[in-house]
Amino acid sequence: MSSTYGEHLKLSIFGQSHGAAIGMTLDGIPAGLPVDMDALQAFLARRAPGQGAYATSRKEADSPEFLAGIVDGFTCGAPIAAIIRNQNTRSGDYEELKEKPRPGHADLTAQIKYGGYQDVAGGGHFSGRLTAPLCIAGGLCKQWLARKGIRIGARLFSVGGIQDAPMDRCDPALDQINPDFPVIDAKIGAQMREAIAAAKAEGDSLGGVIECFVTGLPVGLGDPMFDGLESKLAQIIFGIPAVKGLEFGAGFEAAAMRGSENNDPIVINNDKIVTATNNAGGILGGISNGMPLQLRVAIKPTPSIAKEQLTVSLSKNEQEKLIIQGRHDPCIAPRAVPVVEAAAAIGIFDAYLAYFGNKTEE
Amino acid sequence: MSSTYGEHLKLSIFGQSHGAAIGMTLDGIPAGLPVDMDALQAFLARRAPGQGAYATSRKEADSPEFLAGIVDGFTCGAPIAAIIRNQNTRSGDYEELKEKPRPGHADLTAQIKYGGYQDVAGGGHFSGRLTAPLCIAGGLCKQWLARKGIRIGARLFSVGGIQDAPMDRCDPALDQINPDFPVIDAKIGAQMREAIAAAKAEGDSLGGVIECFVTGLPVGLGDPMFDGLESKLAQIIFGIPAVKGLEFGAGFEAAAMRGSENNDPIVINNDKIVTATNNAGGILGGISNGMPLQLRVAIKPTPSIAKEQLTVSLSKNEQEKLIIQGRHDPCIAPRAVPVVEAAAAIGIFDAYLAYFGNKTEE
Amino acid sequence: MSSTYGEHLKLSIFGQSHGAAIGMTLDGIPAGLPVDMDALQAFLARRAPGQGAYATSRKEADSPEFLAGIVDGFTCGAPIAAIIRNQNTRSGDYEELKEKPRPGHADLTAQIKYGGYQDVAGGGHFSGRLTAPLCIAGGLCKQWLARKGIRIGARLFSVGGIQDAPMDRCDPALDQINPDFPVIDAKIGAQMREAIAAAKAEGDSLGGVIECFVTGLPVGLGDPMFDGLESKLAQIIFGIPAVKGLEFGAGFEAAAMRGSENNDPIVINNDKIVTATNNAGGILGGISNGMPLQLRVAIKPTPSIAKEQLTVSLSKNEQEKLIIQGRHDPCIAPRAVPVVEAAAAIGIFDAYLAYFGNKTEE
Amino acid sequence: MSSTYGEHLKLSIFGQSHGAAIGMTLDGIPAGLPVDMDALQAFLARRAPGQGAYATSRKEADSPEFLAGIVDGFTCGAPIAAIIRNQNTRSGDYEELKEKPRPGHADLTAQIKYGGYQDVAGGGHFSGRLTAPLCIAGGLCKQWLARKGIRIGARLFSVGGIQDAPMDRCDPALDQINPDFPVIDAKIGAQMREAIAAAKAEGDSLGGVIECFVTGLPVGLGDPMFDGLESKLAQIIFGIPAVKGLEFGAGFEAAAMRGSENNDPIVINNDKIVTATNNAGGILGGISNGMPLQLRVAIKPTPSIAKEQLTVSLSKNEQEKLIIQGRHDPCIAPRAVPVVEAAAAIGIFDAYLAYFGNKTEE
Repeated sequence: MSSTYGEHLKLSIFGQSHGAAIGMTLDGIPAGLPVDMDALQAFLARRAPGQGAYATSRKEADSPEFLAGIVDGFTCGAPIAAIIRNQNTRSGDYEELKEKPRPGHADLTAQIKYGGYQDVAGGGHFSGRLTAPLCIAGGLCKQWLARKGIRIGARLFSVGGIQDAPMDRCDPALDQINPDFPVIDAKIGAQMREAIAAAKAEGDSLGGVIECFVTGLPVGLGDPMFDGLESKLAQIIFGIPAVKGLEFGAGFEAAAMRGSENNDPIVINNDKIVTATNNAGGILGGISNGMPLQLRVAIKPTPSIAKEQLTVSLSKNEQEKLIIQGRHDPCIAPRAVPVVEAAAAIGIFDAYLAYFGNKTEE
Repeated sequence: MSSTYGEHLKLSIFGQSHGAAIGMTLDGIPAGLPVDMDALQAFLARRAPGQGAYATSRKEADSPEFLAGIVDGFTCGAPIAAIIRNQNTRSGDYEELKEKPRPGHADLTAQIKYGGYQDVAGGGHFSGRLTAPLCIAGGLCKQWLARKGIRIGARLFSVGGIQDAPMDRCDPALDQINPDFPVIDAKIGAQMREAIAAAKAEGDSLGGVIECFVTGLPVGLGDPMFDGLESKLAQIIFGIPAVKGLEFGAGFEAAAMRGSENNDPIVINNDKIVTATNNAGGILGGISNGMPLQLRVAIKPTPSIAKEQLTVSLSKNEQEKLIIQGRHDPCIAPRAVPVVEAAAAIGIFDAYLAYFGNKTEE
Repeated sequence: MSSTYGEHLKLSIFGQSHGAAIGMTLDGIPAGLPVDMDALQAFLARRAPGQGAYATSRKEADSPEFLAGIVDGFTCGAPIAAIIRNQNTRSGDYEELKEKPRPGHADLTAQIKYGGYQDVAGGGHFSGRLTAPLCIAGGLCKQWLARKGIRIGARLFSVGGIQDAPMDRCDPALDQINPDFPVIDAKIGAQMREAIAAAKAEGDSLGGVIECFVTGLPVGLGDPMFDGLESKLAQIIFGIPAVKGLEFGAGFEAAAMRGSENNDPIVINNDKIVTATNNAGGILGGISNGMPLQLRVAIKPTPSIAKEQLTVSLSKNEQEKLIIQGRHDPCIAPRAVPVVEAAAAIGIFDAYLAYFGNKTEE
Repeated sequence: MSSTYGEHLKLSIFGQSHGAAIGMTLDGIPAGLPVDMDALQAFLARRAPGQGAYATSRKEADSPEFLAGIVDGFTCGAPIAAIIRNQNTRSGDYEELKEKPRPGHADLTAQIKYGGYQDVAGGGHFSGRLTAPLCIAGGLCKQWLARKGIRIGARLFSVGGIQDAPMDRCDPALDQINPDFPVIDAKIGAQMREAIAAAKAEGDSLGGVIECFVTGLPVGLGDPMFDGLESKLAQIIFGIPAVKGLEFGAGFEAAAMRGSENNDPIVINNDKIVTATNNAGGILGGISNGMPLQLRVAIKPTPSIAKEQLTVSLSKNEQEKLIIQGRHDPCIAPRAVPVVEAAAAIGIFDAYLAYFGNKTEE
């Protein structure tokens, strides 16, 4: 089912990087939910290319056109559909990707799986550009969750190994995340940008880790085993291109801890039953436990680099050298921050619908 | 859909730890696939409690009873169903879990979500015992994949921070994994067992990381975005209790690497097009690229420890101290090794059916 | 996904007629729903073979064993699993079905699709016996719907062309359906039984039409297009063996009516907005409109008849004559009445969960 | 999941009658399938309003714009997306439907379910206009099935009770179906048109029955129980607005037949094993048996009629009279003929992918 997600909502993402348009349909959404288009546009702008001081080119944010599902600013109960027209048309100079596949991309894989029929232009359906429609769907879900007091915020946990200041898993200060460059320590943020610029100058690229928090969750979202929150979120988050790792709470660190350290003591705090620590990342048995949900996502370094690389000429079956032309983000982690928020919002909203149903809001 | 998994096969896991039985149904399997019951039993024995020198008690392996779907040693095209009777009946002494929830378990979460109706005995449906039916399904899928030349093997990458010797991502020596204690370096294995024993002696527990390889995969399994191999495997692997992290290939390390390091050069080796390294873990664009698939899973330390812990009396709404009685694995990672193999086999077989269909074998 | 049904609940049916057991798992059910085992057993008895004066042999009703999902008489939030052991073991005398396929059965189809690996004994997974686990799941859903004031009742609309007295689509008198032989006119019921007995005496069989009503439905169940109530119910009802037709409300008759006749006028009745007629069968746009849901199901005559029939010897590739031995229901429609109720209950409960969510009852 | 269909392909339909656009996404389709746009356009023209001598207004056929999934005339393995822009924008004069719901429409149902947030203009998402994107998807599937020798053809079996000449279930003469008005007996077709014209002149409307055949099916498509061909086709066919009944083969007639009449004798004909009759409609046990698949669909009379009808003023809670303005098809059955073909093609293609997988064509 490649590009379709969800049990209680159904998200379908379509489009290729240089096709006519990219877009999404989002089905199963209750009627009567308000849509704040300005807030959505601002959210999409966070993912759009060229924003921020650390990037060289400036471009207008992608503007979705809504084709269905929203009437007079509210969901109408019918599937929502939105598209973004592509400005770059297929130029034909991508045919070389079928001949000389790029390391770290899906070029060779797609060539074999799709027998040469795949759309190679700009990476086709594998392009990071497809995260724009994901952000349309996720931006909407994020708005609707916010009305329930559920808030989602992410930041760069690290870039190229440089770590941002720690955030409290029990009480994450989402308001302190810098809107321009999503870290909480501006000085570290400046170091990250320098590292990105340095990598770029060398024709290279960097990866990063994104940390995402969800606060205000009711206890009880998620179902056991394969429909637990971890499973549900993992399926959509690993659908984001370049994601190679995911951990919840203490995650891989927990594997090196003792039970007495990792177990979160159950305590009474201000007359509320909470846990004193949050190594579980807000999820026990696949179900939200009322603490902030916390997860981290590993983003690999941009595979498109200017440095010379080794590849193979498929027609000649000979070793070749490859120089990738064109401008590419030297680090996609900053732009992936809202994408992780979007994916989390969609997964959480699916769990929300499972629990509370899809009746119209009153 | 809590305990149901799959798009092209449908796995349904049921049972509670102290209920009448645990079991599974596996639907959508082609007819004509042979079932080697001895091999399955041997696979299940790897997960069963009490095996191995590092554990104190010895017990017979769980024996599944097949109720449907297999005739004269071959799948018949109808859903497969198997159960394992529980020996331990509900003793009633578990009611305290509703009163004093255990840290690190789903007790409190389930109490609120299910309003006290949940089966608390032995952890109910949240028990690690539910991985036995997962291993029945996965053991079968593993056999069927082996007939196609697809082999799945896992080992303990680390326990309590102690790491096994490295394995080659491009050519993992699966035969060198020790069958008794799944590491490749026996000396390190002995250290791990000592660490587990030491933790146990202190009334504490350890976690670990499991590394799993899949070799012999054809190019082209997996579909883009949410049905990519990473998404498909993540959904089922995070359904295993105690899993808190998952990474493919270089994973979280990739986030600290440069593109020029992380990209796997495409080379010709023995007239075959391969990659010189395998930081991608065998997956590009969600699709198998012909290199070994490799992933790592973080297992948290057993939450049931003998040490005194903090909890809350739900009826009195007062802070309480908790001592958990009974025997528990001081580290579940060794027994989780075949469970990760099982989950991987199920996910891969689902992708296999998507690609090749469910026609009867000829 | 052959034998798996549902979007918000997941039903999985397994078993072959002469295998070890038949059974079902039912996943996604809220915790806290009471289970009345006596009522369930009484419901299952309606489907069991041998009951009623029109049948010659008497046999005990099938008794399910619940393996999971129910604790102390209430659902516990985990998947429900139940099995029925088969008394008849595979006798080996069914192998002839692979050689001489029976007309009207799936023997030839299965032989080709499953390459001879299918379980032929007693029809295998295609047996009408598989409706017993469907009735376990449906009997439970029926109980739970009844607690919401939603009542489901079915009767024989016709047998062998003999029609029962009409029932009012706007106000069906479900209490007047005879519990022993499900018609409202006892005299017509006697004629039906005579017709069945006469067909049997001739070594032949009869079909019938079942009419099912659902009263007390809230407005708003069902979602547009492919998840409308008609689609949802059709998918499960056509999963019942021998069903060859389905219509809602005026159904095929509506096709011969004029709009002015078929449209149900909207009127005020006792201060409530209702429709004056109910040709829509309680569904408009796929969504319940508050009127009784009504549907009719065509059941074909039992294909197993004593009369000589034409078939082909598959090994010799020659025309053959076939005499089917053994006792078979000369008309399965009476026993299919509770099966249609069960299927309707499952479909409606799935729609109910979509609308109201799966939160624990309070 | 309201407007999403399929297990192995995923179809998502979106749009409202007077929204910006209607459209569809079709995911899971193998790469390398050719697309004949002219043939697709000709297929869509059969559904488009205003064609044929029996209709008064003439209008251009809807022209889809493909946004994704097709490159240089072939599927590329990515989801296919297409839209049709709506020419009629929302005029605002539809608000009355919220006040005075039309009998036979989903107005009142939607008003209650969606709390007044539904799009009422032109019927919104409930409009028959949504069958245009269904025909895009179905028209494509029909082309791809034709390459495998699987042919789909439908005709008007009856209109307003007037029946077309019979067609042979064992060997349907699809070429004899008149392309302009889909019957095989032109004289009867003329009578049907007259009946439609007469109903229209009286401000009334007619229904009809559509018969659809699928020839050239391999044996073995479909899976048992809920994924059988009947279930699979029923779910999508009942998603077509105005469908109220569906039968396969002898269908409701079979319910009045004897087993000896209804069973299709298995015979050898030209060295092939076939059935002498085809009361099963080509499906046994949910699985194609190699005979032509045949089904009939009951279409209710158009609910929008010019005659005065009874309704209720929702704001005043008073009985009202309603006159529906505007032009409406006096019988939608003729235009629904290609829609049934489209739905059948999609359902069959889903079963085809289950059986043969989604590998790229070679």
